[in-house]
Amino acid sequence: MRFLSLALCAVAVAQVPEPPVNYGIVLFPGFQAMDVFGPLDVLNTLSMRQTLNLYIFANQRGLVPTKHAMEGVKSNFGEAVMADYAFNDTEIPDLDVLIVPGGAGTRDSQTQAEVAPFLSKIYPQLQYLVAVCTGSALVARTGILDRRRATTNKLAWEWATSQGPNVDWVPRARWVRDGDIWTGSGITASLDTIYAFVAHVYGEPTAANLSRDLEYVRWTDADNDPFGDFYNTSWPIVG
Amino acid sequence: MRFLSLALCAVAVAQVPEPPVNYGIVLFPGFQAMDVFGPLDVLNTLSMRQTLNLYIFANQRGLVPTKHAMEGVKSNFGEAVMADYAFNDTEIPDLDVLIVPGGAGTRDSQTQAEVAPFLSKIYPQLQYLVAVCTGSALVARTGILDRRRATTNKLAWEWATSQGPNVDWVPRARWVRDGDIWTGSGITASLDTIYAFVAHVYGEPTAANLSRDLEYVRWTDADNDPFGDFYNTSWPIVG
Repeated sequence: MRFLSLALCAVAVAQVPEPPVNYGIVLFPGFQAMDVFGPLDVLNTLSMRQTLNLYIFANQRGLVPTKHAMEGVKSNFGEAVMADYAFNDTEIPDLDVLIVPGGAGTRDSQTQAEVAPFLSKIYPQLQYLVAVCTGSALVARTGILDRRRATTNKLAWEWATSQGPNVDWVPRARWVRDGDIWTGSGITASLDTIYAFVAHVYGEPTAANLSRDLEYVRWTDADNDPFGDFYNTSWPIVG
Repeated sequence: MRFLSLALCAVAVAQVPEPPVNYGIVLFPGFQAMDVFGPLDVLNTLSMRQTLNLYIFANQRGLVPTKHAMEGVKSNFGEAVMADYAFNDTEIPDLDVLIVPGGAGTRDSQTQAEVAPFLSKIYPQLQYLVAVCTGSALVARTGILDRRRATTNKLAWEWATSQGPNVDWVPRARWVRDGDIWTGSGITASLDTIYAFVAHVYGEPTAANLSRDLEYVRWTDADNDPFGDFYNTSWPIVG
Protein backbone atom coordinates (compact mmCIF):
# COMPACT_ATOMS: atom_id res chain seq x y z
CA MET A 1 0.00 0.00 0.00
CA ARG A 2 2.80 2.38 0.83
CA PHE A 3 4.41 1.82 -2.59
CA LEU A 4 1.09 2.35 -4.32
CA SER A 5 0.53 5.65 -2.46
CA LEU A 6 3.96 6.90 -3.43
CA ALA A 7 3.36 6.00 -7.06
CA LEU A 8 0.03 7.86 -7.11
CA CYS A 9 1.65 10.82 -5.44
CA ALA A 10 4.36 10.95 -8.09
CA VAL A 11 1.74 10.95 -10.85
CA ALA A 12 -0.12 13.79 -9.16
CA VAL A 13 3.01 15.93 -8.82
CA ALA A 14 3.95 15.43 -12.46
CA GLN A 15 0.53 16.57 -13.66
CA VAL A 16 0.75 20.08 -15.11
CA PRO A 17 -2.50 22.03 -14.76
CA GLU A 18 -4.23 23.22 -17.91
CA PRO A 19 -3.54 26.90 -18.58
CA PRO A 20 -6.33 29.05 -17.14
CA VAL A 21 -9.36 29.87 -19.29
CA ASN A 22 -11.93 31.46 -17.00
CA TYR A 23 -11.14 34.81 -15.41
CA GLY A 24 -13.04 36.83 -12.87
CA ILE A 25 -12.40 40.37 -11.78
CA VAL A 26 -13.75 42.27 -8.79
CA LEU A 27 -15.05 45.82 -9.16
CA PHE A 28 -16.13 48.28 -6.44
CA PRO A 29 -16.83 52.02 -6.42
CA GLY A 30 -13.54 53.91 -6.59
CA PHE A 31 -11.56 51.15 -8.32
CA GLN A 32 -8.40 52.32 -10.07
CA ALA A 33 -9.03 52.12 -13.82
CA MET A 34 -5.48 51.12 -14.75
CA ASP A 35 -5.47 48.30 -12.18
CA VAL A 36 -8.42 46.83 -14.06
CA PHE A 37 -7.77 47.70 -17.69
CA GLY A 38 -3.98 47.30 -17.68
CA PRO A 39 -4.28 43.57 -16.95
CA LEU A 40 -7.58 43.13 -18.81
CA ASP A 41 -6.40 44.70 -22.05
CA VAL A 42 -3.46 42.32 -22.18
CA LEU A 43 -5.96 39.50 -21.67
CA ASN A 44 -8.49 41.07 -24.09
CA THR A 45 -5.80 40.82 -26.75
CA LEU A 46 -4.79 37.30 -25.75
CA SER A 47 -8.48 36.30 -25.91
CA MET A 48 -8.42 37.04 -29.65
CA ARG A 49 -5.68 34.39 -30.01
CA GLN A 50 -6.92 31.67 -27.66
CA THR A 51 -10.18 30.99 -25.89
CA LEU A 52 -10.58 32.91 -22.62
CA ASN A 53 -13.68 34.01 -20.76
CA LEU A 54 -14.18 36.94 -18.40
CA TYR A 55 -16.75 37.38 -15.64
CA ILE A 56 -17.00 40.79 -13.99
CA PHE A 57 -18.19 40.82 -10.37
CA ALA A 58 -19.37 43.57 -8.06
CA ASN A 59 -21.54 43.77 -4.97
CA GLN A 60 -24.51 44.32 -7.27
CA ARG A 61 -24.88 43.82 -10.98
CA GLY A 62 -24.79 47.13 -12.83
CA LEU A 63 -22.51 50.06 -13.40
CA VAL A 64 -19.52 50.53 -11.11
CA PRO A 65 -17.87 53.98 -11.08
CA THR A 66 -14.15 54.73 -10.90
CA LYS A 67 -15.09 57.95 -9.19
CA HIS A 68 -14.78 58.13 -5.45
CA ALA A 69 -15.97 61.06 -3.39
CA MET A 70 -13.02 62.97 -1.95
CA GLU A 71 -13.21 66.04 0.18
CA GLY A 72 -12.45 69.24 -1.72
CA VAL A 73 -12.53 67.60 -5.16
CA LYS A 74 -14.89 69.40 -7.54
CA SER A 75 -14.03 67.43 -10.66
CA ASN A 76 -16.64 65.48 -12.53
CA PHE A 77 -14.25 63.00 -14.03
CA GLY A 78 -14.70 59.26 -14.10
CA GLU A 79 -15.88 56.21 -15.96
CA ALA A 80 -18.44 53.51 -15.20
CA VAL A 81 -17.99 49.85 -16.09
CA MET A 82 -20.66 47.16 -16.22
CA ALA A 83 -20.57 44.25 -13.77
CA ASP A 84 -22.59 41.23 -14.89
CA TYR A 85 -22.35 39.18 -11.70
CA ALA A 86 -23.02 39.95 -8.05
CA PHE A 87 -20.88 38.60 -5.21
CA ASN A 88 -23.93 36.85 -3.75
CA ASP A 89 -25.23 35.28 -6.96
CA THR A 90 -26.14 31.68 -6.20
CA GLU A 91 -24.86 30.46 -9.55
CA ILE A 92 -21.31 31.58 -10.13
CA PRO A 93 -19.19 30.37 -13.05
CA ASP A 94 -16.13 28.26 -12.26
CA LEU A 95 -13.14 30.58 -12.17
CA ASP A 96 -9.50 29.69 -12.77
CA VAL A 97 -8.13 33.16 -11.98
CA LEU A 98 -9.48 36.06 -9.96
CA ILE A 99 -8.05 39.56 -10.39
CA VAL A 100 -8.44 42.05 -7.53
CA PRO A 101 -7.68 45.69 -8.37
CA GLY A 102 -6.91 48.51 -5.97
CA GLY A 103 -8.01 52.11 -5.81
CA ALA A 104 -9.27 54.69 -3.37
CA GLY A 105 -12.39 52.55 -2.83
CA THR A 106 -10.36 49.87 -1.03
CA ARG A 107 -10.42 52.13 2.05
CA ASP A 108 -14.22 52.06 2.29
CA SER A 109 -15.33 49.87 5.15
CA GLN A 110 -18.47 48.93 3.21
CA THR A 111 -16.42 47.74 0.22
CA GLN A 112 -14.07 45.87 2.52
CA ALA A 113 -17.03 44.12 4.14
CA GLU A 114 -18.62 43.26 0.79
CA VAL A 115 -15.48 41.98 -0.95
CA ALA A 116 -13.99 39.87 1.85
CA PRO A 117 -16.61 37.07 1.97
CA PHE A 118 -16.50 36.77 -1.82
CA LEU A 119 -12.70 36.40 -1.81
CA SER A 120 -12.85 33.83 0.98
CA LYS A 121 -15.54 31.85 -0.86
CA ILE A 122 -13.84 31.92 -4.30
CA TYR A 123 -10.17 31.54 -3.39
CA PRO A 124 -10.22 27.77 -2.71
CA GLN A 125 -11.52 27.03 -6.24
CA LEU A 126 -8.93 29.17 -8.05
CA GLN A 127 -5.76 28.15 -9.83
CA TYR A 128 -4.40 31.65 -9.32
CA LEU A 129 -5.21 34.85 -7.47
CA VAL A 130 -3.79 38.08 -8.93
CA ALA A 131 -4.08 41.18 -6.72
CA VAL A 132 -2.57 44.46 -7.87
CA CYS A 133 -1.98 47.78 -6.14
CA THR A 134 -4.09 48.17 -2.98
CA GLY A 135 -6.12 45.18 -4.11
CA SER A 136 -3.50 43.34 -2.03
CA ALA A 137 -4.86 45.13 1.04
CA LEU A 138 -8.37 43.84 0.35
CA VAL A 139 -7.00 40.31 0.04
CA ALA A 140 -4.76 40.70 3.11
CA ARG A 141 -7.79 41.54 5.25
CA THR A 142 -9.22 38.05 4.60
CA GLY A 143 -6.13 36.26 5.94
CA ILE A 144 -5.49 34.66 2.53
CA LEU A 145 -2.05 36.32 2.38
CA ASP A 146 -1.01 35.37 5.92
CA ARG A 147 2.54 34.02 5.99
CA ARG A 148 2.78 34.58 2.22
CA ARG A 149 5.12 36.95 0.40
CA ALA A 150 3.25 39.83 -1.21
CA THR A 151 3.64 43.43 -2.32
CA THR A 152 1.34 46.42 -2.84
CA ASN A 153 1.19 50.11 -3.85
CA LYS A 154 4.30 51.95 -2.63
CA LEU A 155 2.67 55.36 -2.12
CA ALA A 156 -0.04 53.69 0.01
CA TRP A 157 2.43 51.28 1.61
CA GLU A 158 1.87 52.14 5.27
CA TRP A 159 -1.91 51.88 5.12
CA ALA A 160 -1.99 48.88 2.78
CA THR A 161 0.47 46.77 4.74
CA SER A 162 -1.37 47.59 7.99
CA GLN A 163 -4.31 45.64 6.56
CA GLY A 164 -2.35 42.41 6.82
CA PRO A 165 -0.05 42.32 9.86
CA ASN A 166 0.75 38.63 9.30
CA VAL A 167 1.72 39.03 5.63
CA ASP A 168 5.38 38.82 4.63
CA TRP A 169 5.31 42.18 2.79
CA VAL A 170 8.10 42.70 0.24
CA PRO A 171 8.99 46.39 0.21
CA ARG A 172 11.04 46.45 -2.98
CA ALA A 173 9.27 44.50 -5.71
CA ARG A 174 7.54 45.35 -8.97
CA TRP A 175 5.54 42.18 -8.34
CA VAL A 176 5.75 39.07 -6.15
CA ARG A 177 4.74 35.50 -6.87
CA ASP A 178 4.18 33.19 -3.93
CA GLY A 179 2.84 29.90 -5.22
CA ASP A 180 -0.62 30.49 -6.65
CA ILE A 181 -0.77 34.12 -5.52
CA TRP A 182 0.57 37.02 -7.56
CA THR A 183 0.62 40.54 -6.14
CA GLY A 184 1.64 43.70 -7.96
CA SER A 185 2.92 47.08 -6.87
CA GLY A 186 1.00 50.29 -7.61
CA ILE A 187 -1.26 51.02 -10.58
CA THR A 188 0.96 50.85 -13.70
CA ALA A 189 2.96 47.98 -12.14
CA SER A 190 -0.16 45.93 -12.91
CA LEU A 191 1.12 45.76 -16.51
CA ASP A 192 4.40 44.10 -15.57
CA THR A 193 2.55 41.86 -13.13
CA ILE A 194 0.13 40.54 -15.73
CA TYR A 195 2.84 40.06 -18.36
CA ALA A 196 4.89 38.07 -15.82
CA PHE A 197 1.79 36.03 -15.01
CA VAL A 198 1.06 35.43 -18.71
CA ALA A 199 4.67 34.34 -19.28
CA HIS A 200 4.36 31.92 -16.35
CA VAL A 201 1.07 30.29 -17.31
CA TYR A 202 1.03 30.56 -21.12
CA GLY A 203 4.75 30.71 -21.84
CA GLU A 204 7.33 33.41 -22.52
CA PRO A 205 6.68 33.63 -26.30
CA THR A 206 3.02 34.46 -25.64
CA ALA A 207 3.95 37.29 -23.26
CA ALA A 208 6.69 38.56 -25.57
CA ASN A 209 4.39 38.63 -28.61
CA LEU A 210 1.61 40.37 -26.68
CA SER A 211 3.88 43.06 -25.27
CA ARG A 212 5.37 43.69 -28.73
CA ASP A 213 1.96 43.98 -30.38
CA LEU A 214 0.70 46.21 -27.55
CA GLU A 215 3.88 48.31 -27.92
CA TYR A 216 5.02 47.86 -24.35
CA VAL A 217 8.59 47.26 -23.18
CA ARG A 218 7.78 45.26 -20.10
CA TRP A 219 9.92 44.97 -17.03
CA THR A 220 10.99 41.37 -16.55
CA ASP A 221 12.87 41.83 -13.27
CA ALA A 222 10.44 41.52 -10.37
CA ASP A 223 12.99 43.13 -8.02
CA ASN A 224 13.41 46.31 -10.09
CA ASP A 225 11.36 48.79 -8.08
CA PRO A 226 12.46 52.43 -8.18
CA PHE A 227 9.21 53.41 -6.45
CA GLY A 228 9.92 51.18 -3.47
CA ASP A 229 13.23 53.01 -3.26
CA PHE A 230 11.62 56.43 -3.64
CA TYR A 231 8.95 55.88 -1.03
CA ASN A 232 11.39 54.27 1.41
CA THR A 233 9.34 51.14 1.81
CA SER A 234 12.50 49.30 2.69
CA TRP A 235 12.40 50.86 6.12
CA PRO A 236 11.94 48.12 8.70
CA ILE A 237 8.28 47.49 9.34
CA VAL A 238 7.68 47.37 13.07
CA GLY A 239 4.39 45.78 14.04
CA MET B 1 -5.72 101.94 -37.77
CA ARG B 2 -2.92 99.74 -39.05
CA PHE B 3 -0.86 100.40 -35.89
CA LEU B 4 -3.83 99.59 -33.69
CA SER B 5 -4.41 96.28 -35.50
CA LEU B 6 -0.79 95.32 -35.07
CA ALA B 7 -0.89 96.11 -31.37
CA LEU B 8 -4.03 94.00 -30.89
CA CYS B 9 -2.45 91.17 -32.80
CA ALA B 10 0.63 91.23 -30.56
CA VAL B 11 -1.59 91.01 -27.47
CA ALA B 12 -3.46 88.04 -28.91
CA VAL B 13 -0.24 86.17 -29.70
CA ALA B 14 1.15 86.75 -26.23
CA GLN B 15 -2.01 85.43 -24.54
CA VAL B 16 -1.40 81.97 -23.08
CA PRO B 17 -4.54 79.81 -23.10
CA GLU B 18 -5.90 78.55 -19.82
CA PRO B 19 -4.93 74.90 -19.21
CA PRO B 20 -7.72 72.60 -20.42
CA VAL B 21 -10.50 71.60 -18.03
CA ASN B 22 -13.16 69.86 -20.10
CA TYR B 23 -12.30 66.56 -21.75
CA GLY B 24 -14.29 64.44 -24.14
CA ILE B 25 -13.55 60.92 -25.29
CA VAL B 26 -15.03 58.96 -28.16
CA LEU B 27 -16.08 55.33 -27.69
CA PHE B 28 -17.23 52.82 -30.32
CA PRO B 29 -17.74 49.04 -30.28
CA GLY B 30 -14.36 47.35 -30.38
CA PHE B 31 -12.38 50.21 -28.83
CA GLN B 32 -9.02 49.24 -27.35
CA ALA B 33 -9.35 49.41 -23.56
CA MET B 34 -5.79 50.61 -22.94
CA ASP B 35 -6.17 53.41 -25.49
CA VAL B 36 -9.04 54.71 -23.37
CA PHE B 37 -8.03 53.90 -19.80
CA GLY B 38 -4.29 54.51 -20.12
CA PRO B 39 -4.86 58.23 -20.80
CA LEU B 40 -8.01 58.47 -18.69
CA ASP B 41 -6.49 56.97 -15.56
CA VAL B 42 -3.68 59.53 -15.66
CA LEU B 43 -6.37 62.20 -15.96
CA ASN B 44 -8.60 60.49 -13.35
CA THR B 45 -5.73 60.90 -10.91
CA LEU B 46 -5.01 64.47 -11.99
CA SER B 47 -8.71 65.26 -11.51
CA MET B 48 -8.29 64.54 -7.78
CA ARG B 49 -5.69 67.34 -7.64
CA GLN B 50 -7.29 69.98 -9.88
CA THR B 51 -10.71 70.45 -11.39
CA LEU B 52 -11.27 68.51 -14.61
CA ASN B 53 -14.45 67.24 -16.22
CA LEU B 54 -14.97 64.27 -18.54
CA TYR B 55 -17.73 63.66 -21.08
CA ILE B 56 -17.92 60.25 -22.72
CA PHE B 57 -19.41 60.15 -26.22
CA ALA B 58 -20.61 57.34 -28.45
CA ASN B 59 -23.01 56.99 -31.32
CA GLN B 60 -25.74 56.29 -28.79
CA ARG B 61 -25.84 56.78 -25.05
CA GLY B 62 -25.40 53.49 -23.23
CA LEU B 63 -22.91 50.68 -22.86
CA VAL B 64 -20.11 50.38 -25.40
CA PRO B 65 -18.27 47.04 -25.56
CA THR B 66 -14.54 46.51 -26.06
CA LYS B 67 -15.42 43.23 -27.68
CA HIS B 68 -15.40 43.07 -31.43
CA ALA B 69 -16.59 40.04 -33.38
CA MET B 70 -13.67 38.31 -35.08
CA GLU B 71 -13.88 35.22 -37.19
CA GLY B 72 -12.79 32.10 -35.36
CA VAL B 73 -12.67 33.73 -31.92
CA LYS B 74 -14.70 31.80 -29.36
CA SER B 75 -13.72 33.84 -26.31
CA ASN B 76 -16.30 35.63 -24.25
CA PHE B 77 -13.92 38.25 -22.93
CA GLY B 78 -14.58 41.95 -22.84
CA GLU B 79 -15.76 44.94 -20.87
CA ALA B 80 -18.53 47.48 -21.41
CA VAL B 81 -18.22 51.16 -20.56
CA MET B 82 -21.02 53.68 -20.20
CA ALA B 83 -21.29 56.59 -22.65
CA ASP B 84 -23.37 59.50 -21.36
CA TYR B 85 -23.51 61.56 -24.54
CA ALA B 86 -24.45 60.74 -28.12
CA PHE B 87 -22.63 62.19 -31.13
CA ASN B 88 -25.89 63.75 -32.34
CA ASP B 89 -27.00 65.27 -29.02
CA THR B 90 -28.18 68.80 -29.69
CA GLU B 91 -26.68 70.11 -26.45
CA ILE B 92 -23.04 69.19 -26.16
CA PRO B 93 -20.76 70.53 -23.43
CA ASP B 94 -17.91 72.81 -24.47
CA LEU B 95 -14.80 70.68 -24.82
CA ASP B 96 -11.19 71.77 -24.52
CA VAL B 97 -9.70 68.38 -25.42
CA LEU B 98 -11.04 65.39 -27.33
CA ILE B 99 -9.37 61.98 -27.04
CA VAL B 100 -9.86 59.47 -29.85
CA PRO B 101 -8.82 55.89 -29.09
CA GLY B 102 -8.10 53.12 -31.55
CA GLY B 103 -9.00 49.47 -31.62
CA ALA B 104 -10.32 46.80 -33.95
CA GLY B 105 -13.57 48.75 -34.24
CA THR B 106 -11.86 51.54 -36.17
CA ARG B 107 -12.03 49.27 -39.24
CA ASP B 108 -15.84 49.12 -39.18
CA SER B 109 -17.32 51.23 -41.95
CA GLN B 110 -20.34 51.98 -39.73
CA THR B 111 -18.12 53.31 -36.92
CA GLN B 112 -16.07 55.31 -39.42
CA ALA B 113 -19.26 56.87 -40.79
CA GLU B 114 -20.60 57.66 -37.31
CA VAL B 115 -17.41 59.12 -35.82
CA ALA B 116 -16.29 61.31 -38.74
CA PRO B 117 -19.06 63.95 -38.63
CA PHE B 118 -18.65 64.27 -34.86
CA LEU B 119 -14.90 64.86 -35.19
CA SER B 120 -15.43 67.41 -37.96
CA LYS B 121 -18.04 69.23 -35.90
CA ILE B 122 -16.07 69.27 -32.61
CA TYR B 123 -12.52 69.85 -33.82
CA PRO B 124 -12.85 73.62 -34.48
CA GLN B 125 -13.87 74.30 -30.86
CA LEU B 126 -11.02 72.30 -29.27
CA GLN B 127 -7.79 73.50 -27.75
CA TYR B 128 -6.28 70.07 -28.38
CA LEU B 129 -7.06 66.84 -30.17
CA VAL B 130 -5.35 63.70 -28.84
CA ALA B 131 -5.63 60.58 -31.02
CA VAL B 132 -3.86 57.41 -30.01
CA CYS B 133 -3.22 54.12 -31.78
CA THR B 134 -5.55 53.59 -34.76
CA GLY B 135 -7.65 56.48 -33.46
CA SER B 136 -5.32 58.46 -35.75
CA ALA B 137 -6.83 56.57 -38.69
CA LEU B 138 -10.35 57.67 -37.70
CA VAL B 139 -9.16 61.28 -37.51
CA ALA B 140 -7.16 60.99 -40.74
CA ARG B 141 -10.30 59.98 -42.65
CA THR B 142 -11.86 63.39 -41.87
CA GLY B 143 -9.00 65.35 -43.47
CA ILE B 144 -8.18 67.00 -40.11
CA LEU B 145 -4.65 65.53 -40.25
CA ASP B 146 -3.96 66.52 -43.86
CA ARG B 147 -0.52 68.10 -44.22
CA ARG B 148 0.09 67.55 -40.49
CA ARG B 149 2.71 65.31 -38.88
CA ALA B 150 1.13 62.33 -37.11
CA THR B 151 1.81 58.76 -36.04
CA THR B 152 -0.27 55.67 -35.34
CA ASN B 153 -0.13 51.99 -34.33
CA LYS B 154 2.96 50.31 -35.79
CA LEU B 155 1.49 46.81 -36.17
CA ALA B 156 -1.47 48.32 -38.07
CA TRP B 157 0.73 50.86 -39.88
CA GLU B 158 -0.08 49.95 -43.47
CA TRP B 159 -3.84 50.01 -43.02
CA ALA B 160 -3.91 53.00 -40.66
CA THR B 161 -1.74 55.24 -42.84
CA SER B 162 -3.81 54.31 -45.91
CA GLN B 163 -6.73 56.08 -44.24
CA GLY B 164 -4.97 59.44 -44.67
CA PRO B 165 -2.94 59.63 -47.89
CA ASN B 166 -2.30 63.37 -47.38
CA VAL B 167 -1.01 63.03 -43.82
CA ASP B 168 2.71 63.44 -43.09
CA TRP B 169 2.97 60.11 -41.26
CA VAL B 170 5.98 59.75 -38.95
CA PRO B 171 7.08 56.10 -39.03
CA ARG B 172 9.40 56.18 -36.02
CA ALA B 173 7.74 58.03 -33.14
CA ARG B 174 6.34 57.10 -29.75
CA TRP B 175 4.12 60.14 -30.20
CA VAL B 176 3.96 63.25 -32.38
CA ARG B 177 2.81 66.76 -31.60
CA ASP B 178 1.90 69.03 -34.48
CA GLY B 179 0.50 72.24 -33.06
CA ASP B 180 -2.81 71.44 -31.36
CA ILE B 181 -2.85 67.81 -32.49
CA TRP B 182 -1.18 65.00 -30.56
CA THR B 183 -1.05 61.50 -31.99
CA GLY B 184 0.29 58.41 -30.27
CA SER B 185 1.67 55.12 -31.45
CA GLY B 186 0.00 51.80 -30.58
CA ILE B 187 -1.95 50.94 -27.43
CA THR B 188 0.51 51.25 -24.51
CA ALA B 189 2.20 54.23 -26.21
CA SER B 190 -0.96 56.08 -25.18
CA LEU B 191 0.60 56.34 -21.71
CA ASP B 192 3.69 58.18 -22.91
CA THR B 193 1.54 60.31 -25.19
CA ILE B 194 -0.73 61.49 -22.39
CA TYR B 195 2.15 62.13 -19.99
CA ALA B 196 3.87 64.25 -22.68
CA PHE B 197 0.60 66.08 -23.23
CA VAL B 198 0.15 66.66 -19.48
CA ALA B 199 3.72 67.95 -19.21
CA HIS B 200 3.03 70.35 -22.09
CA VAL B 201 -0.26 71.78 -20.86
CA TYR B 202 0.04 71.52 -17.05
CA GLY B 203 3.82 71.58 -16.66
CA GLU B 204 6.58 69.04 -16.21
CA PRO B 205 6.26 68.80 -12.39
CA THR B 206 2.61 67.75 -12.74
CA ALA B 207 3.50 64.98 -15.19
CA ALA B 208 6.49 63.88 -13.12
CA ASN B 209 4.46 63.68 -9.90
CA LEU B 210 1.63 61.78 -11.59
CA SER B 211 3.93 59.22 -13.18
CA ARG B 212 5.73 58.68 -9.88
CA ASP B 213 2.48 58.20 -7.95
CA LEU B 214 1.12 55.91 -10.67
CA GLU B 215 4.43 53.98 -10.57
CA TYR B 216 5.25 54.50 -14.22
CA VAL B 217 8.67 55.28 -15.66
CA ARG B 218 7.51 57.23 -18.67
CA TRP B 219 9.37 57.63 -21.93
CA THR B 220 10.18 61.28 -22.47
CA ASP B 221 11.81 60.93 -25.90
CA ALA B 222 9.13 61.09 -28.59
CA ASP B 223 11.55 59.62 -31.15
CA ASN B 224 12.32 56.47 -29.12
CA ASP B 225 10.27 53.89 -30.96
CA PRO B 226 11.56 50.31 -30.96
CA PHE B 227 8.24 49.15 -32.40
CA GLY B 228 8.58 51.40 -35.43
CA ASP B 229 11.97 49.75 -35.92
CA PHE B 230 10.58 46.26 -35.41
CA TYR B 231 7.68 46.64 -37.79
CA ASN B 232 9.82 48.37 -40.42
CA THR B 233 7.55 51.36 -40.63
CA SER B 234 10.50 53.39 -41.79
CA TRP B 235 10.20 51.79 -45.20
CA PRO B 236 9.38 54.47 -47.74
CA ILE B 237 5.65 54.87 -48.04
CA VAL B 238 4.69 54.95 -51.67
CA GLY B 239 1.23 56.35 -52.31
